Parts: sequence; C-alpha cells; structure tokens
Amino acid sequence: MSEDRIPTAILGAPGYIGQHFARLLADHPSFDLPILLAGERSGGRRLEEVWQLADAPPAELAHARLERRTAAGLARAGVRVTFSALPSGTAGPIETELVRRGVSVFSNAADHRMDAAVPLLVPEVNADHLRLAGRRAPGRGPLVTNPNCSAAGLVLALSPLVPLLRPRAIHVSTYQSLSGAGYPGVPSLAITDNVVPFIASEEEKIERESARILGTRSGRRIAPARFPLVAHCARVATREGHLEAVTVEAEQSPPLREIEDALRGFDPLAWRNLPTAPHPPIELRHESDRPQPLRDRWAGRPARARGMAVTVGRLRWAPPYLRMFVLSHNAVRGGAGGSVLNAELALDEGMIPGERGGRR
Amino acid sequence: MSEDRIPTAILGAPGYIGQHFARLLADHPSFDLPILLAGERSGGRRLEEVWQLADAPPAELAHARLERRTAAGLARAGVRVTFSALPSGTAGPIETELVRRGVSVFSNAADHRMDAAVPLLVPEVNADHLRLAGRRAPGRGPLVTNPNCSAAGLVLALSPLVPLLRPRAIHVSTYQSLSGAGYPGVPSLAITDNVVPFIASEEEKIERESARILGTRSGRRIAPARFPLVAHCARVATREGHLEAVTVEAEQSPPLREIEDALRGFDPLAWRNLPTAPHPPIELRHESDRPQPLRDRWAGRPARARGMAVTVGRLRWAPPYLRMFVLSHNAVRGGAGGSVLNAELALDEGMIPGERGGRR
Amino acid sequence: MSEDRIPTAILGAPGYIGQHFARLLADHPSFDLPILLAGERSGGRRLEEVWQLADAPPAELAHARLERRTAAGLARAGVRVTFSALPSGTAGPIETELVRRGVSVFSNAADHRMDAAVPLLVPEVNADHLRLAGRRAPGRGPLVTNPNCSAAGLVLALSPLVPLLRPRAIHVSTYQSLSGAGYPGVPSLAITDNVVPFIASEEEKIERESARILGTRSGRRIAPARFPLVAHCARVATREGHLEAVTVEAEQSPPLREIEDALRGFDPLAWRNLPTAPHPPIELRHESDRPQPLRDRWAGRPARARGMAVTVGRLRWAPPYLRMFVLSHNAVRGGAGGSVLNAELALDEGMIPGERGGRR
Amino acid sequence: MSEDRIPTAILGAPGYIGQHFARLLADHPSFDLPILLAGERSGGRRLEEVWQLADAPPAELAHARLERRTAAGLARAGVRVTFSALPSGTAGPIETELVRRGVSVFSNAADHRMDAAVPLLVPEVNADHLRLAGRRAPGRGPLVTNPNCSAAGLVLALSPLVPLLRPRAIHVSTYQSLSGAGYPGVPSLAITDNVVPFIASEEEKIERESARILGTRSGRRIAPARFPLVAHCARVATREGHLEAVTVEAEQSPPLREIEDALRGFDPLAWRNLPTAPHPPIELRHESDRPQPLRDRWAGRPARARGMAVTVGRLRWAPPYLRMFVLSHNAVRGGAGGSVLNAELALDEGMIPGERGGRR
Repeated sequence: MSEDRIPTAILGAPGYIGQHFARLLADHPSFDLPILLAGERSGGRRLEEVWQLADAPPAELAHARLERRTAAGLARAGVRVTFSALPSGTAGPIETELVRRGVSVFSNAADHRMDAAVPLLVPEVNADHLRLAGRRAPGRGPLVTNPNCSAAGLVLALSPLVPLLRPRAIHVSTYQSLSGAGYPGVPSLAITDNVVPFIASEEEKIERESARILGTRSGRRIAPARFPLVAHCARVATREGHLEAVTVEAEQSPPLREIEDALRGFDPLAWRNLPTAPHPPIELRHESDRPQPLRDRWAGRPARARGMAVTVGRLRWAPPYLRMFVLSHNAVRGGAGGSVLNAELALDEGMIPGERGGRR
Repeated sequence: MSEDRIPTAILGAPGYIGQHFARLLADHPSFDLPILLAGERSGGRRLEEVWQLADAPPAELAHARLERRTAAGLARAGVRVTFSALPSGTAGPIETELVRRGVSVFSNAADHRMDAAVPLLVPEVNADHLRLAGRRAPGRGPLVTNPNCSAAGLVLALSPLVPLLRPRAIHVSTYQSLSGAGYPGVPSLAITDNVVPFIASEEEKIERESARILGTRSGRRIAPARFPLVAHCARVATREGHLEAVTVEAEQSPPLREIEDALRGFDPLAWRNLPTAPHPPIELRHESDRPQPLRDRWAGRPARARGMAVTVGRLRWAPPYLRMFVLSHNAVRGGAGGSVLNAELALDEGMIPGERGGRR
Repeated sequence: MSEDRIPTAILGAPGYIGQHFARLLADHPSFDLPILLAGERSGGRRLEEVWQLADAPPAELAHARLERRTAAGLARAGVRVTFSALPSGTAGPIETELVRRGVSVFSNAADHRMDAAVPLLVPEVNADHLRLAGRRAPGRGPLVTNPNCSAAGLVLALSPLVPLLRPRAIHVSTYQSLSGAGYPGVPSLAITDNVVPFIASEEEKIERESARILGTRSGRRIAPARFPLVAHCARVATREGHLEAVTVEAEQSPPLREIEDALRGFDPLAWRNLPTAPHPPIELRHESDRPQPLRDRWAGRPARARGMAVTVGRLRWAPPYLRMFVLSHNAVRGGAGGSVLNAELALDEGMIPGERGGRR
Repeated sequence: MSEDRIPTAILGAPGYIGQHFARLLADHPSFDLPILLAGERSGGRRLEEVWQLADAPPAELAHARLERRTAAGLARAGVRVTFSALPSGTAGPIETELVRRGVSVFSNAADHRMDAAVPLLVPEVNADHLRLAGRRAPGRGPLVTNPNCSAAGLVLALSPLVPLLRPRAIHVSTYQSLSGAGYPGVPSLAITDNVVPFIASEEEKIERESARILGTRSGRRIAPARFPLVAHCARVATREGHLEAVTVEAEQSPPLREIEDALRGFDPLAWRNLPTAPHPPIELRHESDRPQPLRDRWAGRPARARGMAVTVGRLRWAPPYLRMFVLSHNAVRGGAGGSVLNAELALDEGMIPGERGGRR
C-alpha cells in the first residue's frame, strides 16, 4: 500500500456492489487499493474468477485474491476505512464490530440505515446529517450508510425541488434494473418478456429512507419529511440503471423556468473537492424521450464520477402536479459510488480517525 | 359466408391489431369470416404471408387474400359490420364514409373517440354510453370506438372502485409492451436493455379517455369524471400486456374487504350472453408478485374471452391511498377484443342495421 | 384415481421438466393424475405455489400437494409408472430402486442413458431399441430414458436423412433456450444482451447420445452410428425451444426433392395410436426465415402433441453439404413429452408390468 | 480543420456504422474531424439529434450538422479521404465518382468488394492485397473495402491457423447482433424471445469474401482460398458483437500448443504504427465460457483499438476437427473500425493522393 493513501478493505467484495467498489477504488486518489474480503464460498479465489460486470475487472485488482479476515485482523493490519457490500442481515454485527475497533465503515447495507446515530447520507442532499456520527467515543470509527438504490436517485432529484414546491405528496413508480438484485439475483426465466411488480421491502425502504434523508436535523435528531411518499416498485429487464416516474403534488406553483433553474443550478458540493462527486449532480434533459437506462445510466462528469449523476427529463408541470422521469445508476450512485462519496465527504470533514487531519 | 352470421370486414387487417381481429373472428358465433382489407403494400398477399403474431394464423383465414376495396364496394358486397384497425389519421374519413353507407363500424382508431355522438365504450363500464349512437338517421350504421390500450384496462379496474372510494385523484404509471406500437413498431436497438419513458400522445389519451368513459351520461351528453388522472407512460421490453401501477387517492375509507369484494363481485355483463365477455372481468390475485405480463396477459374465461379480463393484484390500502397493479392485454382487451365485445353489445341491443332485430 | 387409468407419479415435480410432466399428465387418456413428488424444500407445498411456466397450472393439479415418498411407499401405493424429472446424479439410485420394486420408470435424467440394458428412446427413430429392456426379470419395471434436449430434436430430423444421405460427418451448432437450464437456472445478468457459448457436458451428450440413438441394434447390443458428430452449444435469451444449425456432409447426392419428400413423408408411428405422438413428426417449412423459437416451438398436431414435432427449414443443398435449421421444444419433445411418448409406446408394446396386456 | 491532419468526410453519417465512424474520427491523430454527410431525411439536423449508440456522441461532433454535398463539392472542399457507411446499392456509384475525382474511399459497403481492382482488406490478414489498388491513374484515389461484419472477425481468427492446419473445410454458425442490421433494423417484436435463422445474403457474403481475403495474390489477381466455407447465419437479441461457432476440418494435426501459440503470437502489424490497430489482434481466452458478446465485444488494446480485437475461446482439438468460438465487434472491427484501419494502412503505404508522402 502506498504511504499517503488510506488503507482500505471491501467487505463482500465478490458481490455485484462489491465489484463496483473494487472498480471505483482501483485508482482512487485518497484511498489505497483495497483488501478484498469474502466469505467461505469465494475466499481464496482471484477477483477475476468471480467477476460479473460486463467491463473487465481493473488491472490493479484482477489478480488479487479474496481473503477471509476478522474485524480484529483488519484493525491489526492497519485498515482505516472499510466499504461494506455485505448483504443486509450479515452486515450489521460485522460493521458494529469494526466501528468498535476504530475502523470507519461506509456501508451499502440496510441494517444500520435507520439507527439514530448513523447518518443515512447523500452528500449533496443532507451533508449536515454527518454530524449524527460526530461525537463518537475516541477510537471509534464513524459508521455512515448510503440509502437504498432507488431512494438515492430520488432524493437527489427532489432535493432542489422540495423548498421550491413544498410537496403535499410524492408519488413514485420504479422501473428497476436486474443488477439491483445482485448476482445471481433474478432468474432469466422470471424476467424475460416480463415485468415483476414486486421487490421485497423496497417500497417501504424508499418511503422511510427518503423521508429521513429529506428530513430536518436538530442537533442529534432527525425530523423526517412530513409529506407522504407513495411508491410502487417493479423489476424490468434492464441490466443497470433505475428509472423512476415521479409526481410531486405541490403546494406552491412557481413558473416552470424556476423549477428548471433549480434543477440545473443545484450543485452544493461545487466548493468542495471530492473526487467522485459529479458536477452537476443533476443532468436535466430536454429531449422528448429521456432519461433512458441504456443511454443515461453512466451520466456524471468528470470521468471518475461516471454513474454518479442523476438524469431528470420529461418535466411536465400542470399545477399542482409536477411530473418527471428520474434515472440513476443503482450500483454506482445508488450503491458503491454513494458510499465512496460519503467516505470522501467524511475525510474532507476530518472524521476518519487515524488519518490526515482526522481525529486521532 | 354462412347464412345466419353477419357479413364482416377488417379494415387494416395486416397490422398487429388487425391480426388479432382475424384471430377473434375466425370462429365467431355471430360474425362471419371477415373480408380482410389492406392498403397498397399488402393488398394481394395472403394473411399467412404478413402474419406477425407468435401463434399461427387461424386455419380458416391463413390462406385468405388481403383485398383492396372501397367503402362503397363493401356496402355493395353486403358487409354489415366492419372492425377498424386502421392507423389513427387514416381511419377517420374511411370510418365516416362507411357509416354514411349504413355499415356499422367498431373501431380501435383514435380519430372519432372524442366525438360527441360516438360512444367510447367498455361494455362492463359504460354500456349506457351506447345511447350516444342511438338516434342516428335511418340507414346509418353506428360508429363505436374502444379506448386506448392503456385506458381500457385501467377503467375496467377502476369501475367498481370509483363509487366506493370516490377518488380525489388517480395516479397511473404504465409499463407498456412492444405490441402496443404495432409492427414493425419499436426498433430492437431502441429497447433491448432499455426502457423508453415516452409514448406519443399516450398520457393525454389515457387522461382524456378515462375521464370520458368514467363520466356520467345525461341524455346525449357526457360529463367527464372530475378527478384528475395523472399519467406517466413508458415502454418496456415485453411482447404483450400492459402493466400499470395505479394509486387512487380516496375520499372515502371503506375497509379493505369491501374493496376486494367490489373487485371480485364486479360482473355487470353477467346477465347478458356476449360470447367474448370474460366472467369475471376482473381477476383479483393475492400472490405477492402478480400480475405479471408473462403470466396474466391471457386472463379471461371462458376460452373465447382469453385476454379480455384485467388482472388486479398487490392491493395495498393505507387511506387515503389505495395502491394496486393492473394488467390487461393491450391488443385484446385494449384493442381488437374490445371492439369485438362492443359489437356484440351493439348486436345484443339491436343496434346493427340490417340484422336480426337490428334497425333495417 | 380412476379405475382404468394407470396410477402414476412424477419424480421431481417442482422442477421445470416436472411441471411439463404435470401439464401433460393432467388429462391423459391412459395415465392417471400423477402423485407429485418433491424433495425437502418443496414438499408440502401446492403445485400452484411453485409453478414457473408462463401458462397457468392445470386445474386438475393446481391445488395438489407435493409429497415426499420412498420408492417402497410408491410401490405400496400401487403406482405403476413413474416419470422422472430428477436432476442427473440424484436420479440414478432412485430410478434403480423403483425398477427393482416393479415400478416402470420413464426418465429425462442422464444417469442411465448409456446403460447397456436401458433404451435411450425416440419412438419415431429407434422404437426397436425398446427391446433392450425386454427380458428383465419378472416383477421388474422397464427403465426407459429420453435423450438430452438438444439430441432429441436433432435425431428426429436426421432419422429420415441418414439412409438417404449416408453422412460422412454431421455438424451442429445450437441456440439453446433458457428453460434448458431449468429454474432458477441462468441468472438474468448472465444472459441479457448476451450469448453464453458453453453448457456443461452438452456437446458430449449430443454427440454420444445421437450416435447411440441413430445406431444399429443387434440383439441386446447397439452399434453406435459411425459418422462423427461435431457440436457447438450456446445459450441464447429465448424462453423455450432449441434451435440448431445442422450441416450434413453427405456421401450420397440425391436430388433435393427426394430429401424434402423423405422429411415430409416421415411418420413411422402413423399406424400406432399413441396419444402424444405428433403427425407428422417433422414439419417442413419453406419460408426464408423459419424455424424460429417464438413461432415454431409449439409445433405438433393434434392438440395433445403440441411441442412434440420438430420443425425443419432453410434447407440448402450444395452437395456434399446439406444445411438446415432444426427446432424443437426442449422441455416437451426434448424432455417431459419425450418420456410420456416413450411410456405410451411401452404401454402399446405391453411392457408395463401389472397393466392391461402388460407383463404381470 | 487542422493544418496537418487529412481532411475527411463520412458518407452516410446518420447510420449506425456512420456513427461509429464519427466516434472513431472525433479524435484521430491523422484524420481531421470529418464532414458529416447525409441524405434528404437527415440533412440539416445535428449529429446528436440522430444519435443511436448507447454512449453519448463525441463532444467534438455532437453539434455538427449533417450536410448534403456532391462528390464534386467534396473534392472542391479539399476532402482527401472519405469513409463510406452508405447502404449497399446506394454506395457504388457515389464511391466510383469520388475516386474519379481523386478522393480516396474507404468503404464498408458491399458494392465494390468483389471488384478485381478493389482490395477487400483486413490489414493483419492480407495487407498485400492493397497492391490491387496500386497502379491507378494519377489523380485517382484508391478505393478500399472492408469485409462483411461476420467475415471480418472470422478471417482474422483463421489467418494464423490456415497455414498451420491447412483446412479441408471450414464450418461456421453465427450468432449475430441486432446492430448488424443497422437502425431501425430488426423490429423488437421480431426478435424478443426469438432467434431469426436468416440474414439476407449473409451466408453468401461470408463464404465469398472470406475466400477472397484468405486467397493468394499473384500480381493483380487473387486466387481465392480453395477450401469450402459452409455458413449458417442467425440473428440473436444482443446489441453488439457477432459470435461465431467455427470448426476447421484440418489436413494437418499439429499439437494444441502450436495452435495456441500461433493465435497468441499473431501480430503482423506489430512493426507498424497504425493508431487503430489492436495489439494483439487476437485475444485468446481460457475460461470455459468465453468469448461472450457482453464481455468481449470491446476487446482491443490500446484504448483507441477498443472493439478491434477478435476474441477466441473454447478451443477444442480432436483431429481433424478444431472447434472454437470467435467474437468480434461487428460495427467496429466488422465495420467502421475496419475501414479506419484500412485507411491508416493506406496512409502508411503512401497511397493517399495529395497527402504527406502520398502520390500527388
């Protein structure tokens, strides 16, 4: 590992999100090449042997072996930051143990998302929620979570609209991609020539998590957003990218131009230097038939931020209803990339213990 | 043609809806084997040569030649009932001409759907709208239209719910199949691994037509339903069957059991003997992941009514929001089958001129 | 169970082939409604709860419970014929045990296909191989296997051509459907926008089994066909129906018309009355772009024989190379239907012990 | 246009291959940003408005307008090199006219591929065929064609094998992607859940063109390769990348290691500096299930040569039959990239008139 980059590890490296973490960390300016952790089934194999993404594995990690290590072992090895792609249920206790040993955890798992002291974070939307993790005991790492893959894109698109429109209710119907279920995930016979109008716990997560992220912090408490969020979730046969049909029932009726300007001008991280942050985070399109998963899933500039921007299109404004389609890459913005950006923000805020400017 | 069945013709027989008309009329108890009409490109070819449906063409019509005939020619040939699968734009004047010559027209085209004197009909929902066509000049056939493919399933599922819930607003997001665009329709490169969140005029049609069908007739006028209908339309890569995510914002809050009973007990055509009417017209499912296009598109009993029932599932009731998924076969209930059923109703009502019990 | 139909059971009923067995036996003139057998995971559930086929489960069996029974228990219950859809590896010992107890086994599993005393049977091709099972000890049921799903269609198409062309070599490349791998089978992320040019052991099975089926029996021995069969197997994203590109390098050069006549005139079961036998077993098509999985997978007349015929098209004859495409339904002709037809033949030959005309 | 890069134009820029040309020429070291030519339908529109590829159009050309110009106009404007993505039939006379006016043409169209004086070129395979264009009259540009999209990958994989194995016959079955038919190309209803075993003229082209490319040049004449090439062509539902199952019936039987070494060591352009040439041109894979369109279509290093390498895998050698799967990107190696590489070779050989080192 290089001297000046932070030692890292990926928990659950062989999974679909774990592989996106590997891709993003193969060449990161602040985080060192990760140790790749796996369970019994994949431990000992090389990353390239379990690789499932369409693009080839990063050369820096393709031959790296998946390892089995304990939390204690990781701490002893000097790992300071872990990225968790563990399945919900498995993730919880391991993440708690790591934090207890002073290792920071940035997690894609659902287990701790609703914990009072755990930020559920989308940096452009609720960076100040990071404070929830702020007064941890010395020697403890922060535990920060990114939201459900559908909620991530949704709250990003809603963030500039909420103060402008003051929603009475928000309706969302999703067109979620196959990779949202990981690998092997959805059987081909279940989805070829089909749509499956059910994803376990997904509607609940979207509603609950979005309300928390869009909520208001007072000290160490979050008051969830109070408008109802009414969700329908369905799986369609796309590889990557969750599309969402969103209707905001608005209390206020600004002109359309103000709405467009709010979306276009939104860039609260503009003044920070976070490598994985897209600028702008919302790409507004004016064609009649966008966003589309195939064409817009990789939106986000600069190159390191590919897949981190949300694309908004088909804005239709007939007060009180604002309709739009929203697309984001479920495994990047809604998964690995979300947590990498969270870690960059925490690092920038000096919250990574034992590190440059961090709490030691 | 047999003595006792009504001579018919299909306008636009080589198209996707035209072929479904052919399938449904190949063996119909009241309507005779249709004359198959086509334009310049397909005229002279045999039906089997232009056949696009997955199942083989009906043996009775496979070798029949597509013909080119004028409205006058059809009338002279004794055709009493025509089924129109012509593209919107083309359909209008031809349908008008046929009606003027005393030939009844049952049309899937959009051109006349909003005409004041033309019923936009879904027999289970607004059979009484047939009266709009009632006092035509002698010697004129009625012109009756079926709605847009997405509206057809939607209003059928909503019909028993409207009086029970008294909607304040209805939200619908569609997952529409490829066949909704006809043949050749959607290019494979446009939709493979993709969703296209736009279908020209579709949202407007759903909103406008649903309001009319669910509206109230007073004499010869229809007062459209007054709740807003807010639609998002998208194309997904399924062959047949439109899925819709529907939320009713309700003014009333009956218990869930009453809602289920209303859906299950709905069968306003039970007392009539219409061959293509499904009994029940709404199939309510209780599995966690239904309806699905692959499995439910052909719902409808008896056998002749396959594809005519709408399947409703995933009922979730958290007042004031009732959520459900609705599925119907776009080319059958939402196309050819809709018009065949309309014709059966008109025949039952004695409204087909020159026919058993009809106005002569 | 009815008095005059033979008591049956399906081994591995919850699997994809098991469900096709259920479909075929729900209403069979000779075989009674089957007992549905399952392993630990599915035992106790109703068939409709595990159903994976696109069409609804047969009404006669939808509510039937999957049971767990031993071979002894089945024999005690009076079951005379079992259809095996067990996975290879599991199937072998269970099938042996059943036969030992006098229960006939018609199996889709690979375990016993190459056993010297076990017919590997496609009735139209090598009905005489049934003799291999002929002199079993009294009280033993016959064990008869159907071939691999790709070999089944191939040998059927080749059967009338072998004597006419005297092949020097046969080349085959397959385009195999998802259902060939069962359920859950192929992950959607592995095959969407992809082709996978590998199916474990498939090429070896096609080569070995085709040679045996097309081989010559002398007494109790089979001399395999001697021409090399060179196979490439690949998985494509179709639901059902295996397409095969076949080239016969021929020693003889009859005119094309003779080849077509041989294919068209082939119907060696014409004189028997086997309910599931298609007539003709080979459907020869002359369109430029057939056979296609979507359109031809269900070939086979009468209705009970749907999916049992092989479709041959694109015949191109430039001696010494005859090229053609061959399509058959992998789960029907190449699976459950194959074994049902084998059982019908065995019954017709009086080889089912304890049965009408059978060996008691 | 920059001073030192060669002025270029793309004929048929709005088509699928035309867009790949635009992508490849947006940032080329030798060829200047192209003028984009289109027909009546697209003329005047911006490239981004007609863009069909999944990735965004190159920033350098996205806003460029499609123009309508005559051959004379192009010559007057100083265009020296044109890349032709015109449809076969249309391309022929326009290409002839351009050459007559001294403009070089590198064409993907089939019209002139078999002309005696026109090289049908794959630089790694038959660079010396460029001589066919060698003694043109002064002031005439060369006309060089790339082969059919399926032939391109095939001959590249065969090139090192032909001298080693001395084929008696070659069998190939293709799994061709949707983009091979251009845009709009294959209707989604024709291919969803389907394979279409026919592509017009494709088998003939593969056989004829491969024989020519693998043939031997004596002066200005090509003696085609003499072994028969027996092809089956089918369309599958992949976006890009043609997969081919290839069997070589060999006269010689070297050990497998020699075959692998021949494939791996093959790099006849190693000593040249052609920007779009992949090194190595053949990527040999040892996994059990590769090559796959999804994963291997973009093979080729360095970055500029993405999609230019052919991937070979599943080598099985049972003399006399060598079996393998071959994959290449139909629109890059088998289309636009092929012609760009041809132009780079011609430039390197000093055959572009009016240019650095060219014949003036």
